Amino acid sequence: GFATIDTDREKRTGLPEVIYASGKTAEQVAQIAERMHQKGIDVLATRATPEMYEEVQKLIPGAVYNPLAKTIIYRESKYENDKGYIAVVAAGTSDMPVAEEAVETARFLGNRVESVYDVGVAGIHRLFHKLELIRNARVIIVVAGMEGALSSVIGGLVDKPVLAVPTSVGYGANFEGVSALLGMLTSCASGVSVVNINNGFGAACQASLINKL
Amino acid sequence: GFATIDTDREKRTGLPEVIYASGKTAEQVAQIAERMHQKGIDVLATRATPEMYEEVQKLIPGAVYNPLAKTIIYRESKYENDKGYIAVVAAGTSDMPVAEEAVETARFLGNRVESVYDVGVAGIHRLFHKLELIRNARVIIVVAGMEGALSSVIGGLVDKPVLAVPTSVGYGANFEGVSALLGMLTSCASGVSVVNINNGFGAACQASLINKL
Amino acid sequence: GFATIDTDREKRTGLPEVIYASGKTAEQVAQIAERMHQKGIDVLATRATPEMYEEVQKLIPGAVYNPLAKTIIYRESKYENDKGYIAVVAAGTSDMPVAEEAVETARFLGNRVESVYDVGVAGIHRLFHKLELIRNARVIIVVAGMEGALSSVIGGLVDKPVLAVPTSVGYGANFEGVSALLGMLTSCASGVSVVNINNGFGAACQASLINKL
Amino acid sequence: GFATIDTDREKRTGLPEVIYASGKTAEQVAQIAERMHQKGIDVLATRATPEMYEEVQKLIPGAVYNPLAKTIIYRESKYENDKGYIAVVAAGTSDMPVAEEAVETARFLGNRVESVYDVGVAGIHRLFHKLELIRNARVIIVVAGMEGALSSVIGGLVDKPVLAVPTSVGYGANFEGVSALLGMLTSCASGVSVVNINNGFGAACQASLINKL
Amino acid sequence: GFATIDTDREKRTGLPEVIYASGKTAEQVAQIAERMHQKGIDVLATRATPEMYEEVQKLIPGAVYNPLAKTIIYRESKYENDKGYIAVVAAGTSDMPVAEEAVETARFLGNRVESVYDVGVAGIHRLFHKLELIRNARVIIVVAGMEGALSSVIGGLVDKPVLAVPTSVGYGANFEGVSALLGMLTSCASGVSVVNINNGFGAACQASLINKL
Amino acid sequence: GFATIDTDREKRTGLPEVIYASGKTAEQVAQIAERMHQKGIDVLATRATPEMYEEVQKLIPGAVYNPLAKTIIYRESKYENDKGYIAVVAAGTSDMPVAEEAVETARFLGNRVESVYDVGVAGIHRLFHKLELIRNARVIIVVAGMEGALSSVIGGLVDKPVLAVPTSVGYGANFEGVSALLGMLTSCASGVSVVNINNGFGAACQASLINKL
Amino acid sequence: GFATIDTDREKRTGLPEVIYASGKTAEQVAQIAERMHQKGIDVLATRATPEMYEEVQKLIPGAVYNPLAKTIIYRESKYENDKGYIAVVAAGTSDMPVAEEAVETARFLGNRVESVYDVGVAGIHRLFHKLELIRNARVIIVVAGMEGALSSVIGGLVDKPVLAVPTSVGYGANFEGVSALLGMLTSCASGVSVVNINNGFGAACQASLINKL
Amino acid sequence: GFATIDTDREKRTGLPEVIYASGKTAEQVAQIAERMHQKGIDVLATRATPEMYEEVQKLIPGAVYNPLAKTIIYRESKYENDKGYIAVVAAGTSDMPVAEEAVETARFLGNRVESVYDVGVAGIHRLFHKLELIRNARVIIVVAGMEGALSSVIGGLVDKPVLAVPTSVGYGANFEGVSALLGMLTSCASGVSVVNINNGFGAACQASLINKL
Ligand SMILES: Nc1ncnc2c1ncn2[C@@H]1O[C@H](COP(=O)(O)O)[C@@H](O)[C@H]1O
Ligand SMILES: Nc1ncnc2c1ncn2[C@@H]1O[C@H](COP(=O)(O)O)[C@@H](O)[C@H]1O
Ligand SMILES: Nc1ncnc2c1ncn2[C@@H]1O[C@H](COP(=O)(O)O)[C@@H](O)[C@H]1O
Ligand SMILES: Nc1ncnc2c1ncn2[C@@H]1O[C@H](COP(=O)(O)O)[C@@H](O)[C@H]1O
Ligand SMILES: [Mg+2]
Ligand SMILES: [Mg+2]
Ligand SMILES: [Mg+2]
Ligand SMILES: [Mg+2]
Ligand SMILES: [Mg+2]
Ligand SMILES: [Mg+2]
Ligand SMILES: [Mg+2]
Ligand SMILES: [Mg+2]
Repeated sequence: GFATIDTDREKRTGLPEVIYASGKTAEQVAQIAERMHQKGIDVLATRATPEMYEEVQKLIPGAVYNPLAKTIIYRESKYENDKGYIAVVAAGTSDMPVAEEAVETARFLGNRVESVYDVGVAGIHRLFHKLELIRNARVIIVVAGMEGALSSVIGGLVDKPVLAVPTSVGYGANFEGVSALLGMLTSCASGVSVVNINNGFGAACQASLINKL
Repeated sequence: GFATIDTDREKRTGLPEVIYASGKTAEQVAQIAERMHQKGIDVLATRATPEMYEEVQKLIPGAVYNPLAKTIIYRESKYENDKGYIAVVAAGTSDMPVAEEAVETARFLGNRVESVYDVGVAGIHRLFHKLELIRNARVIIVVAGMEGALSSVIGGLVDKPVLAVPTSVGYGANFEGVSALLGMLTSCASGVSVVNINNGFGAACQASLINKL
Repeated sequence: GFATIDTDREKRTGLPEVIYASGKTAEQVAQIAERMHQKGIDVLATRATPEMYEEVQKLIPGAVYNPLAKTIIYRESKYENDKGYIAVVAAGTSDMPVAEEAVETARFLGNRVESVYDVGVAGIHRLFHKLELIRNARVIIVVAGMEGALSSVIGGLVDKPVLAVPTSVGYGANFEGVSALLGMLTSCASGVSVVNINNGFGAACQASLINKL
Repeated sequence: GFATIDTDREKRTGLPEVIYASGKTAEQVAQIAERMHQKGIDVLATRATPEMYEEVQKLIPGAVYNPLAKTIIYRESKYENDKGYIAVVAAGTSDMPVAEEAVETARFLGNRVESVYDVGVAGIHRLFHKLELIRNARVIIVVAGMEGALSSVIGGLVDKPVLAVPTSVGYGANFEGVSALLGMLTSCASGVSVVNINNGFGAACQASLINKL
Repeated sequence: GFATIDTDREKRTGLPEVIYASGKTAEQVAQIAERMHQKGIDVLATRATPEMYEEVQKLIPGAVYNPLAKTIIYRESKYENDKGYIAVVAAGTSDMPVAEEAVETARFLGNRVESVYDVGVAGIHRLFHKLELIRNARVIIVVAGMEGALSSVIGGLVDKPVLAVPTSVGYGANFEGVSALLGMLTSCASGVSVVNINNGFGAACQASLINKL
Repeated sequence: GFATIDTDREKRTGLPEVIYASGKTAEQVAQIAERMHQKGIDVLATRATPEMYEEVQKLIPGAVYNPLAKTIIYRESKYENDKGYIAVVAAGTSDMPVAEEAVETARFLGNRVESVYDVGVAGIHRLFHKLELIRNARVIIVVAGMEGALSSVIGGLVDKPVLAVPTSVGYGANFEGVSALLGMLTSCASGVSVVNINNGFGAACQASLINKL
Repeated sequence: GFATIDTDREKRTGLPEVIYASGKTAEQVAQIAERMHQKGIDVLATRATPEMYEEVQKLIPGAVYNPLAKTIIYRESKYENDKGYIAVVAAGTSDMPVAEEAVETARFLGNRVESVYDVGVAGIHRLFHKLELIRNARVIIVVAGMEGALSSVIGGLVDKPVLAVPTSVGYGANFEGVSALLGMLTSCASGVSVVNINNGFGAACQASLINKL
Repeated sequence: GFATIDTDREKRTGLPEVIYASGKTAEQVAQIAERMHQKGIDVLATRATPEMYEEVQKLIPGAVYNPLAKTIIYRESKYENDKGYIAVVAAGTSDMPVAEEAVETARFLGNRVESVYDVGVAGIHRLFHKLELIRNARVIIVVAGMEGALSSVIGGLVDKPVLAVPTSVGYGANFEGVSALLGMLTSCASGVSVVNINNGFGAACQASLINKL
């Protein structure tokens, strides 16, 4: 086969192998999903199109698709982390696909998640209405495009680790997410670290490792 | 001489000719200053070193130096714009040199100015304590380095034009002000426009033209 | 719904909420438009395709489409700012879509607008023919691609604030508007501030706040 | 004074105010340090020169200087986090200043720290000799310049969160740390997040927040 | 015709002329292929689509297509370099198209090739399982995207020249291969040199020249 | 010696060999100058410091230094091109060093030169006062920093070739001349070509070749 | 109409108005072409598709299309410059579209043209076979992608002005022509100036102005 | 001590450990050198200042300094590779420091070296005079700044592997070696691979591994 499943990975890294569907055919995604399923491994595919879901569903009828997150999930594991929840906070409605990728991934990894959307800094009163929910999380994922200012503001308001996800939302001098990325990296608030542009999945992995501590 | 004074400029553009001292010798700055002074033109030199001030003072004893702003000013004009004030808001103490350049320039141009410093978004409660002062201005200059988030937050809280000045404060992925510049240009708030990195002078010119309307 | 309308925004920021149609489906745009319309809010959608207009028109028959500006507008408000007009000046015919976005937005916000097109610096006599119209405006929006030189030239000829809008018009070393953006930011004329590439909407918002002073 | 101490910050963000000495005079650093000391606040200054230390020592004799880390520390707090330790892993000897900044900061914040240096991927056997020490940490800070590959390798070997700090070590196509930054952001391993170039301080802040969970 | 075949090239440069199919029509590729074939020159076309192959096959029935490598090959030459083999090592399955271009080109040039795929540094134990095969090669081509760390790791483990090929695999801060390129250029291991992004062909040419020594 | 003089160059390229003094010691410059002088070759050294001139003068007493242009010249040739003159036009006084390098080089190459300084587009009336002098040249060198708009304006006003020289004059988003360079490359006027940042020498070489036609 | 024809331009700039077809509809191109034709102005449209040509031909049957150059031309003018010819030299076959744009434009402007293709520096003997033809031109346009080395080589071999046109031919680190552009700007040969990426038209305009001297 | 010597490295990688002196004090360099010397390891320090050499010489009197290459060498090994020589070819005299670093390193590693300097493409006849010497090498290192064209030209003339070293020689759009780097990476000649800017050492390491095959 074209891809060997690294079943040992979860023990080694605390994170199971998942399918990054981008650039694969619907058939390839479905085959890998089935192979994992047959070995009793839970399935998560990210960046998955509806066509891919159709193919997967033929082989794994119970699989669930989130069209906003573009995730396919089939999960049998009963593991739930009961230490606390991860907050996923997004600035604008256009950032929601990346935020949802984080939400779905974090849940797949056994975490409780609270999501708070549309609280960008251009109307900062909206953020304050949700501050308690954010402050009570154990880890906070902040998803924002354009200037990415939200992670700085939240970083200065909470005493928990903030994981910032820049998105490619915006145009012109946004440079497909570079502006948000740079803003988050040079954040004037401490306690903020950053993952790649649009990488909701990666932020959720990191948040899950932290939430298990 | 090496530089012709454009006395007509004020009538044409609403802004007088001033001395950009960077790259000139102390003697050159002093000579230009004196020539202007002799023609009855008020003198503003920006990016001026203490050495330059020493030379200017020999020729124009009443000239005043602001070492933080790095401005030399000699002003005889009695013109005061009484329509309202310009607020100059700075994120961190390291942004103060640029903010002070804006303050000195705006006053030189006949404007009333209120300055509000050290209200960066990493401790956003500080901003709210000063919000009324900011909201009551006719124009707001926002000076910030690192991720430049302050202009987005203020832009979303006021109904007056915001002029954003990115500063080169920061290091690493800050790229000498580029991160703040990009953040301000892609601001999620409307009513924000931007001038060049560290250009407190330019922001004050624009603010002064607006404040005269 | 997927987007909460921020009805309070106008009071807070002097600018109403509008629909940024890019990345939304025709149905989504139409639904948001209708919801606003039902609450008695005037509707402006920017970056709207003809398909979106078709959907909006089914629900709001009086809505008007400007295919060059790509705006959908339904306006009942009677407010007209009578202090003076905003001039929208564009360098080339290819810059007209961005200029028209500015014109439509400025009118939607209650401003009188005069537009002056095709006066780029490669044939600078054209600009001089229109100089009086430009000089008599209270605020001037300058829209230009390629090297963006027009804002420097106009900035040196008028005593009113100039808002520069770089456009992505050009190719090669133009880098989708970056050359014009950098040129405008480093303008040798004072009294010029800049918004994001192609952001005619943002320039009009800023101009409207200024024109109300 | 020129800088207001944000004593409330620790309660709000879990991280106390510290002195970022870069760009300040030795006298300014000493004065701020003394003011904090008099209020009973522990003192940490980063990016501090030997001259600054001399001034601080005059006022706070017990202050300790780490010339590699360029930190000045005076700590009275008895707080020690006993949940486990933070590992600080550095690729090359030139990365040690940044690593030491992280070590000093993490200890100042009450954490136990184990440091592992000179284990870059060009001689990967060195890393394997220290793997147990790294694996048994609760959080791992990885400091590396040039291509920044070390965070990917470690990220694939441990089940704990990895915080990657790119350094400006290198030359040419290293672009003062950009290559390492990009490498770390696009890491093929999950469970890795990134802070600004050379920001050992920031990584330690984040690690400390995580280690307290 | 539109392209003159440089039959003399092989003698001059040790490398025959081949067809770079990208940007050519299927007909053009087929015509050039046939013209070469008629002169008794072996045919290699890179970046070839299935449509191109169809056209070539009509004229040269024995031509073979590798859809992953996107190469069309017709080879009559009997030359086989018997000094040793070239190892082509790829980090992830998405890097395989570039790796296969290298494999096909190297074989076309008369070299023995061993390929080792899916041994990226995020699971470095996989690499160690294949280390002997890699170490026994005379030249090693390392193909990797994202942060390109694999060439540093291998460079530190072998005493043979490593040719690194960055790929455009990845997204966001990967910048279509720039991150891998920079990582490979600034590699902390010696004995590594680099070719253009995705240039499996070029790496194989260089490897073949080396393998003939 | 460390540098072989290419005496044949002038015949081959129409341009003699000259000394690029940057990065050489005063002694090296003087030695090369003397060697050329002894062979009867005219001497031009660019980017030369006063210290270099001192050394050269010891060996070639008649050599002349232009401290603004930073050129050392010793010319015995009687050749004067009498077809017409080259105009060297500079935007601001800070652009004069580059403009003077062009002037000195062009004269050294036997051309008549007219220089027109301080006619930047921020006060465009100044340009019109000098337009006849510019229009009557056979070739026009335009030297400008910041946004480099002057070459577009002149390009649209004259029917002669314009050679644009971007300068590094400016700060912030000027990026040491990149903004002017990009502006000149994307000029909306035809008949403009560009040389490297600050390369007054190169523009004069090209202008001289053209002026000889 | 949407575009005013600047009939005065030729007198002012030595270059007539032409149609830049990119971004216009076939109908718009045809209408502008006809309007020019009716006024007795010769027609040149660049970047024109076959569809545009079809529309133009309906209105101006004698118009001629060059599909490689993507130019539409209708020329009645009898003017022929008899001073000498322009050489258009291209490195690779993929650079031919840009070279042909230059050829067609130069002929349209009344110049004699000799074209020399496929003489890139990777097989430099090809260049030497054509050197006399190149050397005897009055101006030389050099068109090259990838590293753009051809203009340096030719610049060192001829005593005539070289106009370099970088093309976007290449991939990866070519960055759509930036590598060739930078290479040409920093050319080690004097007597080379540069136009925008792919701007065969602009090079021909400049060459024509020069060739008329 | 601050640096552990990796004595095993030579066996593992074919390349011994050497001292990269940049960023170390003269004392540190001398101490590491002596420690290596005492263990019987040959010493090579690159990027070494005269002050460092003074310190080293006190401890290892026989050490030799090359001030152009900035290398300190003490070599007792008798190993000489007798298979053939490495050619080090440099474009301009300013590229000689990097070329000499390559020469010294290659000799230190036991290779015979022939160096060919000042054969840049702006006077290509110089290259042809030396072509036999270059062609007869087993590996060719090409060192060039500015546009880096020399590696393309040589790559097209020889049937041996070419290792290209871009240098930071140049100014303006040269961007401290980036232009040469990009030019070499996108070279139109095959059989060329590239190392980091100014990395003469790295090129020699790679060349030495190849020359041993
Ligand atoms: N053309 C435009 N460019 C930038 N921002 C815009 C534009 N049009 C609308 N906006 C902003 O986008 C907001 C709506 O975004 P959304 O909630 O995603 O529809 C508006 O309230 C404006 O502040
Ligand atoms: N090395 C460092 N890198 C980045 N930020 C730092 C560093 N050291 C201190 N800081 C931050 O800078 C703040 C102090 O800045 P200032 O008020 O300018 O002294 C501290 O409270 C930290 O949040
Ligand atoms: N995948 C590739 N990447 C880069 N260069 C290639 C590739 N394949 C072929 N080439 C080069 O392109 C030349 C053919 O170019 P062309 O004449 O345009 O077909 C060949 O002789 C090779 O030197
Ligand atoms: N200001 C300058 N900018 C760019 N190139 C120059 C300049 N001055 C001289 N040159 C070129 O540099 C060559 C001399 O370089 P060198 O052999 O290093 O002294 C001259 O022959 C010119 O071609
Ligand atoms: Mg915090
Ligand atoms: Mg606002
Ligand atoms: Mg003005
Ligand atoms: Mg991990
Ligand atoms: Mg090795
Ligand atoms: Mg012209
Ligand atoms: Mg020449
Ligand atoms: Mg070759």
